[in-house]
Amino acid sequence: MTFTEKVRDIQQTKNSLLCIGLDPVLEKIPPHLQKTGDPIVEFNRHVIELTSDMVCAYKFNLAFYEAQGPSGIEALEASLELVPPGILTIGDGKRNDIGNSAERYAEMLFEGLEFDAVTVNPYMGTDSVEPFLTYPDKGAFILALTSNPGAKDFQKLKVGNHYLYEKVVQRAKKWNTQGNVGLVVGATQPRELAGIRKHVPEMPILLPGVGAQGGDLKKSVEQGCSKYRDLLLINVGRAIIYAKNVRDTALEVHDTINTYRNAKR
Amino acid sequence: MTFTEKVRDIQQTKNSLLCIGLDPVLEKIPPHLQKTGDPIVEFNRHVIELTSDMVCAYKFNLAFYEAQGPSGIEALEASLELVPPGILTIGDGKRNDIGNSAERYAEMLFEGLEFDAVTVNPYMGTDSVEPFLTYPDKGAFILALTSNPGAKDFQKLKVGNHYLYEKVVQRAKKWNTQGNVGLVVGATQPRELAGIRKHVPEMPILLPGVGAQGGDLKKSVEQGCSKYRDLLLINVGRAIIYAKNVRDTALEVHDTINTYRNAKR
Repeated sequence: MTFTEKVRDIQQTKNSLLCIGLDPVLEKIPPHLQKTGDPIVEFNRHVIELTSDMVCAYKFNLAFYEAQGPSGIEALEASLELVPPGILTIGDGKRNDIGNSAERYAEMLFEGLEFDAVTVNPYMGTDSVEPFLTYPDKGAFILALTSNPGAKDFQKLKVGNHYLYEKVVQRAKKWNTQGNVGLVVGATQPRELAGIRKHVPEMPILLPGVGAQGGDLKKSVEQGCSKYRDLLLINVGRAIIYAKNVRDTALEVHDTINTYRNAKR
Repeated sequence: MTFTEKVRDIQQTKNSLLCIGLDPVLEKIPPHLQKTGDPIVEFNRHVIELTSDMVCAYKFNLAFYEAQGPSGIEALEASLELVPPGILTIGDGKRNDIGNSAERYAEMLFEGLEFDAVTVNPYMGTDSVEPFLTYPDKGAFILALTSNPGAKDFQKLKVGNHYLYEKVVQRAKKWNTQGNVGLVVGATQPRELAGIRKHVPEMPILLPGVGAQGGDLKKSVEQGCSKYRDLLLINVGRAIIYAKNVRDTALEVHDTINTYRNAKR
């Protein structure tokens, strides 16, 4: 089973496009979990227990764990153990380096931490991405068009008749000989998302930027799904994990996504 | 003192442009160091003791440490402690992420690990780079034109009359309001290095790609130095750290650089 088939299988089985971003900040963790052995792990346990029946994936932004030093990596390892089978784990590190260094990152993320997928920055080109593509059942989501204001600085520069991010999409399509390449596209840019989906009808798209960053959920679902209304992984982080009622909030996002997803077009 | 002034001061005081890349691979460490408590730390101690009088900087590629999990981060911390004062430490992680995640990386690298400088991937634009620029005495080397074959895939795409990497250089120049921005330019591209130096006469340039990757040292020194024949940090890794005689090899590279540097032009 290729990574793309795995995404489809999980999304259809669980009837969910929702990915929850587990990026806890110590100061924002509720007081009763602060007193436990490892507050980060206990916080993640709490969120995972309340939401694992309604997500297709959990995304871990490595910055939040690495910032804590060695104990942060241990917390990441322990948190990954808490994810039940049948849910994708995404290591969001946006790594990229020349061949032998990229190999180390790929080993660390896919073999050491056993993530199902990672995010990769494309700036250094083919040989810097290839080490992440040598695991046929693991996914590499290439940054195409990100959700932040700075996306316009380089990603939206015109290269001939195309934007730079479109050149990245074209290249990612070439890299995808084994069905293990995906794209990162920000929810803040629904028109561009539609254009990208047209170009890669069957590639998984990881979509950050809904929630705290203000992306439009309805448009994202309409423009970002494949023709089978899947292969879009909608990441919501802060808006769910710090909600007063985590389960109700997650369920509402999950159901809203499926309402848009199942609407007649 | 700005970061740029600090680079100049150290390079002039030590009369050295040599930066050694401390990226040890366990299997390549000599047998007698394998038996010690932490072979990675002992190997770095060995290289640092033999070379600290002739370098301006040590560069640590984070991939090699992170690949070992929590103990790798401990080895990195312990190795950083071994670097004597008056030598720059560069955390080569090529990180980049949206604002709040990039802040975490900047905190981890500048405050946690206390690196003097880091490498940053520019693909996500201004707001993703800014968190690394809020430390006036710490440097951020922006990837401009890298030394690997994949550099041509995106960095050398034409954006109007310029290459993408030139757009990055222009932007980095704007970011450099506090004298704490540098560039990464591969030694494999001396002609482009000359053009970049012309555009940023007083910006530190970190130059990988000499040695194992085949970059031309003479041309790099001629094209990459500032008018005071400094602000170029020439990184050599494998060719020195695994040499049969580490000190002699490092000294030879150091002296060769200074011969080219002091030659009449």
